[in-house]
Amino acid sequence: MFDKIHEECGVFGIYNKDDLNVANEAYFALFALQHRGQVSCGIAVNNDGIIDCEKGMGIVPDVFDADTLRKLTANGRGDIGLGHVRYSAGKDSIPINSQPLVMRYSKGTLAISNNGSLVNTEEIKRELQTTGAIFQTNSDAELIGYLIAKARLTEGSVEEAISVAMNKLEGAYSFLVVSPRKLIGVRDPHGFRPLCIGKSGNSYMLASETCALDSLGAEFVRDVKPGEIVIIDENGIRSIEDHCGQKTSLCIFEHVYFARPDSVIDGASVHMARRMAGRYLAKEHPVEADVVIGVPDSGLDAAIGYSEESGIPFAFGFIKNRYIGRTFIQETQEQRERSVHIKLNPLSAAVKGKRVVMIDDSIVRGTTSAHIVELLRKAGATEVHMRISSPPFLNPCYFGTDISSREYLIACRLTLDEIRQEIGADSLGYLSLENLHKIAVGSKCDFCDACFTGKYPVEIKDSIFEDKFSKKINESKK
Amino acid sequence: MFDKIHEECGVFGIYNKDDLNVANEAYFALFALQHRGQVSCGIAVNNDGIIDCEKGMGIVPDVFDADTLRKLTANGRGDIGLGHVRYSAGKDSIPINSQPLVMRYSKGTLAISNNGSLVNTEEIKRELQTTGAIFQTNSDAELIGYLIAKARLTEGSVEEAISVAMNKLEGAYSFLVVSPRKLIGVRDPHGFRPLCIGKSGNSYMLASETCALDSLGAEFVRDVKPGEIVIIDENGIRSIEDHCGQKTSLCIFEHVYFARPDSVIDGASVHMARRMAGRYLAKEHPVEADVVIGVPDSGLDAAIGYSEESGIPFAFGFIKNRYIGRTFIQETQEQRERSVHIKLNPLSAAVKGKRVVMIDDSIVRGTTSAHIVELLRKAGATEVHMRISSPPFLNPCYFGTDISSREYLIACRLTLDEIRQEIGADSLGYLSLENLHKIAVGSKCDFCDACFTGKYPVEIKDSIFEDKFSKKINESKK
Amino acid sequence: MFDKIHEECGVFGIYNKDDLNVANEAYFALFALQHRGQVSCGIAVNNDGIIDCEKGMGIVPDVFDADTLRKLTANGRGDIGLGHVRYSAGKDSIPINSQPLVMRYSKGTLAISNNGSLVNTEEIKRELQTTGAIFQTNSDAELIGYLIAKARLTEGSVEEAISVAMNKLEGAYSFLVVSPRKLIGVRDPHGFRPLCIGKSGNSYMLASETCALDSLGAEFVRDVKPGEIVIIDENGIRSIEDHCGQKTSLCIFEHVYFARPDSVIDGASVHMARRMAGRYLAKEHPVEADVVIGVPDSGLDAAIGYSEESGIPFAFGFIKNRYIGRTFIQETQEQRERSVHIKLNPLSAAVKGKRVVMIDDSIVRGTTSAHIVELLRKAGATEVHMRISSPPFLNPCYFGTDISSREYLIACRLTLDEIRQEIGADSLGYLSLENLHKIAVGSKCDFCDACFTGKYPVEIKDSIFEDKFSKKINESKK
Amino acid sequence: MFDKIHEECGVFGIYNKDDLNVANEAYFALFALQHRGQVSCGIAVNNDGIIDCEKGMGIVPDVFDADTLRKLTANGRGDIGLGHVRYSAGKDSIPINSQPLVMRYSKGTLAISNNGSLVNTEEIKRELQTTGAIFQTNSDAELIGYLIAKARLTEGSVEEAISVAMNKLEGAYSFLVVSPRKLIGVRDPHGFRPLCIGKSGNSYMLASETCALDSLGAEFVRDVKPGEIVIIDENGIRSIEDHCGQKTSLCIFEHVYFARPDSVIDGASVHMARRMAGRYLAKEHPVEADVVIGVPDSGLDAAIGYSEESGIPFAFGFIKNRYIGRTFIQETQEQRERSVHIKLNPLSAAVKGKRVVMIDDSIVRGTTSAHIVELLRKAGATEVHMRISSPPFLNPCYFGTDISSREYLIACRLTLDEIRQEIGADSLGYLSLENLHKIAVGSKCDFCDACFTGKYPVEIKDSIFEDKFSKKINESKK
Repeated sequence: MFDKIHEECGVFGIYNKDDLNVANEAYFALFALQHRGQVSCGIAVNNDGIIDCEKGMGIVPDVFDADTLRKLTANGRGDIGLGHVRYSAGKDSIPINSQPLVMRYSKGTLAISNNGSLVNTEEIKRELQTTGAIFQTNSDAELIGYLIAKARLTEGSVEEAISVAMNKLEGAYSFLVVSPRKLIGVRDPHGFRPLCIGKSGNSYMLASETCALDSLGAEFVRDVKPGEIVIIDENGIRSIEDHCGQKTSLCIFEHVYFARPDSVIDGASVHMARRMAGRYLAKEHPVEADVVIGVPDSGLDAAIGYSEESGIPFAFGFIKNRYIGRTFIQETQEQRERSVHIKLNPLSAAVKGKRVVMIDDSIVRGTTSAHIVELLRKAGATEVHMRISSPPFLNPCYFGTDISSREYLIACRLTLDEIRQEIGADSLGYLSLENLHKIAVGSKCDFCDACFTGKYPVEIKDSIFEDKFSKKINESKK
Repeated sequence: MFDKIHEECGVFGIYNKDDLNVANEAYFALFALQHRGQVSCGIAVNNDGIIDCEKGMGIVPDVFDADTLRKLTANGRGDIGLGHVRYSAGKDSIPINSQPLVMRYSKGTLAISNNGSLVNTEEIKRELQTTGAIFQTNSDAELIGYLIAKARLTEGSVEEAISVAMNKLEGAYSFLVVSPRKLIGVRDPHGFRPLCIGKSGNSYMLASETCALDSLGAEFVRDVKPGEIVIIDENGIRSIEDHCGQKTSLCIFEHVYFARPDSVIDGASVHMARRMAGRYLAKEHPVEADVVIGVPDSGLDAAIGYSEESGIPFAFGFIKNRYIGRTFIQETQEQRERSVHIKLNPLSAAVKGKRVVMIDDSIVRGTTSAHIVELLRKAGATEVHMRISSPPFLNPCYFGTDISSREYLIACRLTLDEIRQEIGADSLGYLSLENLHKIAVGSKCDFCDACFTGKYPVEIKDSIFEDKFSKKINESKK
Repeated sequence: MFDKIHEECGVFGIYNKDDLNVANEAYFALFALQHRGQVSCGIAVNNDGIIDCEKGMGIVPDVFDADTLRKLTANGRGDIGLGHVRYSAGKDSIPINSQPLVMRYSKGTLAISNNGSLVNTEEIKRELQTTGAIFQTNSDAELIGYLIAKARLTEGSVEEAISVAMNKLEGAYSFLVVSPRKLIGVRDPHGFRPLCIGKSGNSYMLASETCALDSLGAEFVRDVKPGEIVIIDENGIRSIEDHCGQKTSLCIFEHVYFARPDSVIDGASVHMARRMAGRYLAKEHPVEADVVIGVPDSGLDAAIGYSEESGIPFAFGFIKNRYIGRTFIQETQEQRERSVHIKLNPLSAAVKGKRVVMIDDSIVRGTTSAHIVELLRKAGATEVHMRISSPPFLNPCYFGTDISSREYLIACRLTLDEIRQEIGADSLGYLSLENLHKIAVGSKCDFCDACFTGKYPVEIKDSIFEDKFSKKINESKK
Repeated sequence: MFDKIHEECGVFGIYNKDDLNVANEAYFALFALQHRGQVSCGIAVNNDGIIDCEKGMGIVPDVFDADTLRKLTANGRGDIGLGHVRYSAGKDSIPINSQPLVMRYSKGTLAISNNGSLVNTEEIKRELQTTGAIFQTNSDAELIGYLIAKARLTEGSVEEAISVAMNKLEGAYSFLVVSPRKLIGVRDPHGFRPLCIGKSGNSYMLASETCALDSLGAEFVRDVKPGEIVIIDENGIRSIEDHCGQKTSLCIFEHVYFARPDSVIDGASVHMARRMAGRYLAKEHPVEADVVIGVPDSGLDAAIGYSEESGIPFAFGFIKNRYIGRTFIQETQEQRERSVHIKLNPLSAAVKGKRVVMIDDSIVRGTTSAHIVELLRKAGATEVHMRISSPPFLNPCYFGTDISSREYLIACRLTLDEIRQEIGADSLGYLSLENLHKIAVGSKCDFCDACFTGKYPVEIKDSIFEDKFSKKINESKK
């Protein structure tokens, strides 16, 4: 909610065989995926090879209205639709980086939406530049587009070109490509980010999460496999699986925090995973208490789980203001300091005179946690026991989230007990790594836990490593 | 959430003795009161008798930004601040009806914010018109202002004029008046709408609900008594209680649905009242089931109560999309039909294969209820038992909510079992009137239950009665 | 163009007997009257007694778009339409003062648009307040509305009530009133501000200037007489002339600067009046020169006249930037200083090496004049002879323009030769008062020249006099 | 004004050696160049190699406000600034085509602004695509950027790369390039579009027209020569003239209509050129008449010239509404038909009872001309003699204007007398080609007159020729 790490994107695509309005479908699907990115969004509509695209800064209801949607389908209801929501921070939060990216190349037109983060962008750029490439954005989607265009010079089909391009791509990516006649979905061989297939009538869809399919009333077909290229066209759906078969490593934080609880990723319910995290927490860090509460929204499921395992009653401990949005004014220090309390009010009736177990999904800087603990005490809680449904953050993420500086990570600076003191809790317990790996019941994927362990599923070159972490530390020292 | 009755307003005032920025305080307080009205909002700032006012259509973050707030305090941080959020429907949803209303009269300047609905507006208008009055708005605040101005011609002080004006006012009102040197809060003798007093440092505040005080870090002092006039000026706080002592009748729907659960009204916690409603429901309408869920947000507390009493586990049955806002496109029939599912997705992991008790606070038309039951069944619920934490709506409300047409009320048309069938539930149970009166544990006020019983605490003249109900029935027949 | 005095309003009304869309008609008419006020604008549409109104801050294309116009005629194309454009400065530039003003009173609904300025507002307010009146705006329209409502208590018809109300009104006013069945136009007995009648098909119109009629393709019928009340309803057009017959005093500055040159006021063409001013200037202040230029736009006609009389060739001396609008950034001193040059560029090809006569309509502070003279010299003019098509400003105006402070008037501070030196001209000549009175060839009205002579057509009470002038001098000394 | 051909762009660049705020300078310069394009605009600011860029759809005051300008210089007041205004029609009127275009390539960062139109874009694209290029825009600037990036792989400096790239470019282009350390201006060897050099203090500027220099108070240094590459860096200004020396062909329509009259292009005053056109018209097509008027704004100068030569007095025949802007509503046919009259009102006082000579710069479709003639007659003109200050349009333009379809050109369909009849004039005369070539007195360039003669200064391949003309004719037949 605040003081959180952030996911970088969500994607959606639809191949229309039912006279659907693909702009409308994408609009509703992006609403469902909005939690994956609020900085910019866009929709592209392909009518017989002509691609119209509208994108802008802000959330879906800010960028799209009835007029914009009408404009998108002025030339027809769309053969294929493509959508994107994007999170980004700092200097990358500019219009040019919005997606979908529409490009023309030797074989016609392509539109690309991507979720993830490559770890070898500099290498790819250097290679492309030697043939005279120019770059107009900072997005991986542009590099992917270039590599496809290059590969297409020798390959027969778009999907073959994509397969060749994948040889150059290292890191996390789940991208969709719209060509004049095809919708293609690609998930990196490690499966860092989710991607799934849905169907409604005769029309196939691809989406970052199943909740987008639900919102369209579509049925879930299956997840795209790590390494799989899914091609949808008038002949139906087929796959290229040449890149499948590696050890998989889905970002575990999709289950802990990023994804919506009503989504099911690689066979595991996100809601159940959080509830299981709560149960394991209760086993690992039991405490005598009167009530279990969760920090909304992501801590609520884990709190239910903790309650189930411990027998301590669950309660709503906070009321979250539904109306706090992007435009909340935080210009002055005073306004910023108040923001936690304005977003979140403790429910005195539920916690007064009680020993409270409070579940949150993670601690980044710790400032918000401290604030929340203080609010609970003022509301009358006699004890506050904090439980975190993941291990301590200790390492940077290179695969599409914004954990970027050790300075910001409280667990890099302080011991467990120092953290407990700094946030003012009576006790503090993190979920163990061992149990973390058990929460996603039924998952067909293994997980990346590098932010906790430092063990990266793909090699991180020294140069990037230093760039992401060392440099930021310097910056934050200024 | 949808297909709901609506509250009509929220008010906030502050008398500044601590060099606070009163525009900022009002801004944050209105955020906390936003659930009471989303159609328009406004803030007035009094600097030494000069009142600046900014208002507009939409929610607080739409109307106010850093520039607007700065403009409001261009002449100083404010001696007194006044805020308002407004709900209104149909032809009254126009800018001119926004509040605070700022007026000049024989003794200087006044600003007024009101929550409620008078039942004798036509009488008051007729009387005022005989002396040549003109009306520029459709708001009760304008009539109140006129009556104060009239009374002031003979009375010595604003508060005395207000007391005289109250003799003419019939119905529901909780209003705040800012004069050049005073902040005055008034609650009608029946206490239909809430109003409370808070304090932060040396500065007093008046607000519709205590959650606004919490959001400012202010302490709750006490509720304004039904009939009380509270005067705050440089000498502190004092009261006129000439209108106190009548039988009180707080709107019971404040507890059931309108107010925020973290608010405490006349001594009773809203959260606890809802939980109690859930407990009584469990006693009145027990059922064998596997899980209890609530329709977000208002049904959640009652679901916890039902779970506590019945021993059936509580679960989150729906995920509510956090990003659906005012600008959600619903132009076409198709878009409208989808809106429920886009706002609310059942959590399959929680309900699949289970017998579900679902708690909602009320049924208006029943269309949304039917839709939700259907979604639950599609998500795998084997049984759906609907429980409503209030009795059936049968009568119009004249005191500030928009229950206005029997046509729209399913309980006016159908028997209990017909309703059950129409919404497709396996069983249906409403909270009894008797138990409804017990839910607000600790309340110092009696309640108005006229929407269930037809017994109005104040006389409703035939003319209004016909106007509100009969006419609307005709209209809806067109 | 800059450093100018300003007119305060323009009005337009239409009584529709031809199935016209009255919102559209008003929209186009207000465009034509936009020069009379750019601070706010509004349109009201009467459908069978129900009046819808849209207004906002800014110029017509900012406030009205296709959606707004559609909203205005959602209930019908309109029986009667009413429009207003407003200029105002300082604390009066707030939304609440926008017009038309729509009010309800004992006999139904009225909408009012006014152009002008009363000189006895305080007196009227005091009297109204003794009966309990409240004021929500700072506009004369509200006072006029009140007086009509009061008079209506005893009079039989709106027009009779208006006639009675006029007994209380002193000063300048040209207002339009829309009642459920009538469009009424009123011009004060002195005729300070213009008002004319037009006709298109069977539909009558009332407008501040004839250029509004032209823009609608309507024919000019005649001017409203000073003191006349014109009533338009289904029976056609008729008049009440009880207030006619006084000595008239049209604001001479309507001809010199305010009105559009294509308008004809009280029988005199504005364009011709300016041209005549130029001719008289040439007679009064001849000079040997090579070229005559005008400061756009208002100085151009007078320059043509000077050229005709003197035989010195006319030329375009400046190019005015067509795109400079309301949003031009002038935050910093540097930006402000540049604004003259950015708006107006001397045409070197026309003035280089030449002795230039430059005509402007007036000098207020003189700073812009000095800047323009400097620009001409830089562009190569060897001599610059400034000619002003009106006498020096020496007195405040109480009738609807913003000449309000002697401090600002260069002619109050300096002698003729000192002014010449300050603006850097080689010679300077103002039009004489005697000839000023001759410019409006064919005018049926006499003129108010109080800003030059101090002889006010209506008595100015000491209190107002001091208020407007002395106070401002103090203020400007702060 | 309406029914006109359009220019496609304007450019501005500044190399800052005086602590100027380059965003501010560009903002003011773009205002002065706004007439060259109103569809989109943008400003890029280079601080030590880091380039920030803001651009958007609409005119300068719509896209830029104080906040946007502040954002642009958040990292410094700018070493180098670059601006662009763009006109475009149809499918190219989309945000992605806005300029400046900022790109990264092997040697760092470049920003490009271009005015003109290449005739061999397809050839260039084909060649680039064979090396895997992708195109994200439809602008020539992207192709130019690519060619520079390619050339840079082998060349030592940006300017050398530009020189090599120019070997591939055929057609009209005047572009500016900002590299980390240099501002470079390039004009195509034919000099189709203007480009000039200015200086203010120690800072050099490049601009499409001299009026931009004037608006900044800068002095004109000289025109960039056709074929010249001008390099400005910390060492001052220098040139590469390898591409100079060809036969030049400045677009004659810059003088007739596009450029601002206060600009001087290649040594000839635009104002004087138009005046000369009027003089030649008077010689070629004399007529007995009482008054000469011009269609604002472009016909005014020529009208002065006609008056000077013929001795017939000049007058203002029309008043142009100053407030008609981009948002003027023209949704319905009725609204569109009215638009001419709303923008332009004949000045009855000037034309009534008179034989009128009316000068316009060109006739495209003729519909507007017919409307204007009709308005003049209604205003009382007894005769209307139309004179056009250029020959009839007969051929498409490939060099940056939007004359694209013979269908639209009245002179392609009708004989001179038929045109006269269609527009309803008493007589009609076009300027002869011979005299057209004499109007730009002092010009150092020859002219392109292909739109009149069909003689193109560069070879137009059949494919393009057919594309631009034949295809459009088909389209317009649909």
